[in-house]
Amino acid sequence: MLKNTTSSSHPGNQSRLNVMNFLNEIAETYPQAISFASGRPSERFFDFHNSADHIDCFAQYFARTNSLDIASAYNRLAQYGRTNGIINDLISAQVRNDEGIKCRADQIIVTVGCQEALDLCLTTLCNGTNDVVLVRSPTYIGITGVADLKQIAMRSFECEAPEQFAEVLVDSIAQAKSQGQCPRVLYLVPDFDNPTGVSLSRETREAVIEICARNKIIILEDNPYGFFRFENSRIPTMHALDKHGCVIYLGTYSKTICPALRVGFAILPDCMFGEPRLSDELMQKLSRAKSFVSVNTSQITQAIVGGVLLSENLSLARIIQQTTAFYRANRDAAVAALARAFKEFEGKIKWNNPAGGFFLTVSLPFDFARKEAEVCARDFGVLVMPMTFFSLNDSNKTSVRIAFSNSTPEIIDEGVKRFRDFVARCLSSNLD
Amino acid sequence: MLKNTTSSSHPGNQSRLNVMNFLNEIAETYPQAISFASGRPSERFFDFHNSADHIDCFAQYFARTNSLDIASAYNRLAQYGRTNGIINDLISAQVRNDEGIKCRADQIIVTVGCQEALDLCLTTLCNGTNDVVLVRSPTYIGITGVADLKQIAMRSFECEAPEQFAEVLVDSIAQAKSQGQCPRVLYLVPDFDNPTGVSLSRETREAVIEICARNKIIILEDNPYGFFRFENSRIPTMHALDKHGCVIYLGTYSKTICPALRVGFAILPDCMFGEPRLSDELMQKLSRAKSFVSVNTSQITQAIVGGVLLSENLSLARIIQQTTAFYRANRDAAVAALARAFKEFEGKIKWNNPAGGFFLTVSLPFDFARKEAEVCARDFGVLVMPMTFFSLNDSNKTSVRIAFSNSTPEIIDEGVKRFRDFVARCLSSNLD
Repeated sequence: MLKNTTSSSHPGNQSRLNVMNFLNEIAETYPQAISFASGRPSERFFDFHNSADHIDCFAQYFARTNSLDIASAYNRLAQYGRTNGIINDLISAQVRNDEGIKCRADQIIVTVGCQEALDLCLTTLCNGTNDVVLVRSPTYIGITGVADLKQIAMRSFECEAPEQFAEVLVDSIAQAKSQGQCPRVLYLVPDFDNPTGVSLSRETREAVIEICARNKIIILEDNPYGFFRFENSRIPTMHALDKHGCVIYLGTYSKTICPALRVGFAILPDCMFGEPRLSDELMQKLSRAKSFVSVNTSQITQAIVGGVLLSENLSLARIIQQTTAFYRANRDAAVAALARAFKEFEGKIKWNNPAGGFFLTVSLPFDFARKEAEVCARDFGVLVMPMTFFSLNDSNKTSVRIAFSNSTPEIIDEGVKRFRDFVARCLSSNLD
Repeated sequence: MLKNTTSSSHPGNQSRLNVMNFLNEIAETYPQAISFASGRPSERFFDFHNSADHIDCFAQYFARTNSLDIASAYNRLAQYGRTNGIINDLISAQVRNDEGIKCRADQIIVTVGCQEALDLCLTTLCNGTNDVVLVRSPTYIGITGVADLKQIAMRSFECEAPEQFAEVLVDSIAQAKSQGQCPRVLYLVPDFDNPTGVSLSRETREAVIEICARNKIIILEDNPYGFFRFENSRIPTMHALDKHGCVIYLGTYSKTICPALRVGFAILPDCMFGEPRLSDELMQKLSRAKSFVSVNTSQITQAIVGGVLLSENLSLARIIQQTTAFYRANRDAAVAALARAFKEFEGKIKWNNPAGGFFLTVSLPFDFARKEAEVCARDFGVLVMPMTFFSLNDSNKTSVRIAFSNSTPEIIDEGVKRFRDFVARCLSSNLD
């Protein structure tokens, strides 16, 4: 069950490129295929037309809080601005209200989407020759992409059962150290993971925090999907559970408001590994790096986010209600369709039932790679992502990722039927 | 006259941090001082209130050109989008109309301000152990900042007389090669340079292109100020003059529309060093890097730029008319005030009369460093930037940068008088 691998830069490199190309090529080649490939949010709840109202709402607030007349507030907003952002106080209030995260505004750096936060944190934290970032495989291509690009070594570990995450992590850290590596960062998506849909329990989160604190490893807690919970049970974020100052929380407004904003953020621990000085130093490094990478995040798109937060009483709870219900209905449709479609294959085909988010995993009794994905799209009219595309080693050859976020129950139903036909043909030809 | 220096990372590092801190600290400590320190554009011509109209104008165009209804166009705009941008065709038309640059849309990558373009180009082009970027000293802190951050070696050369630029460059390349370095990139601001205000002649531009083409060096032509010409004479951009495919043109809408957009771009040569394949490969690398650094530039701010370009018939000429007149009046006021103020010092104090842009250089008969800048702000109420802050070596100790962009003739007049009083005291105490 336990495999530990350090990925060399080039093969990973290539595979990441392939994922992007594959998605584009196959979607262009088979435009009539139902796509479960792209993990984009659904557009139907985007609120793009009221940008001017949101900007105005924020400008009024900005004028008031900075003792400016409204014309001067607009002028200030249109200029270059603070490297770390201008809506940090509003974000601080929103994450407190929505996520139970307590932080001051100055623990936050506003970034060009969450991807810039990933880039800044990874390059700032892993700058020694032997530094490595730990990731479970399969993982989000945004983290492997930036690590490849910046030539930061990754060590991946497999973990089929999420309750074994802490145990596997301990082994991975020990193996890394025995090989002279220095694990600096653990990247994870504890809520409704991309690509697997899996969540970590409270006990696992607490255990992982203890392990990382002991080993002076910073956890990058990426939480784009945590808002979209389909069940009542709610597990606290790792940032909220962290008593050792080892968690950096990464957030984004791409899924809750819209991706076109390119506004995300990182929240540093108040007291990194128990030392406030370390938090201050890290924030200074991140801020300096940001100033030479993008100067500051657009104050126009920050103002839109600020306006939305102000008009929603500093909580996204109301505006994500409808969206969450929509994703839940899609998840329900997917799980029900899978149960109907694969009834006759009793136990050969398995899938999980994620408690939130955008993705689920289907495990097949045969390998499913690029070739199978192409056949499935071409001959059966449905596009699913081979899990190997997200894998850093040779694992997960028989799994696929189904993204149900940007679809509808009707389309999901039809898509799953088509996928069933593909699976049936594969199984029967295997029996030939 | 000729000094060639390879800058080691750390001292540069420190000095760049100092520039940022110095500006902030001194402006906070002496808020009543007249500031010629910050090179920000003037806010008075920003058009920030019409964002919604601009977005709508672009959305209509986007719907038409992509055969979408308007609701679908808005949905598409609100989503994740094309890594290289969605307004590339409009930028291509605008630079052709305004700058005489002929390029196809697919030679353009839209970036998060020009700073992201600098970062992407520098890190992609200089990735070998011995690779260096060539810069004249003093230079823009954005290029030295990103080189420091990414640990890319810089080789700086001095060039007091702009007509000797080509000659000095040849020596610098030769010295670099003799030391085993591989010059990959030459960074320059040929029009109204930051920090000096100096421009390169057509002959120098052509000579520099020949030298770089011969040595397979890519020129990063950064042109934030070229729009703001105070005289009728106009020198073609290096990208327009380039017949060898060695110029990447870097543009921004921060100075012409407003900085809050964070929209800039890079235009690659059609045929890099005569080989179209090299251009394609470079664009693929830049695009891949961008996808893992910022995914794509905000489609909201791209739509605002697109809307402005469409409503202005694909030229910024009309909207910069007033702004250019304003900056010209400030330049005139500065030069006239300097002539009046330093009449009695006949020839001891010198300054240039830039034909455009935001900055001019004043040369003093004594050293002007951090300490002098503080005294000048504290005791005389005027803040100017020591040129050493932009210097990569020990040169330019007696020069200061005067930014006249974000001021008025009245304030400039008063500020120059105060600066004169400071200079007079320094000279008299020197005589003591």
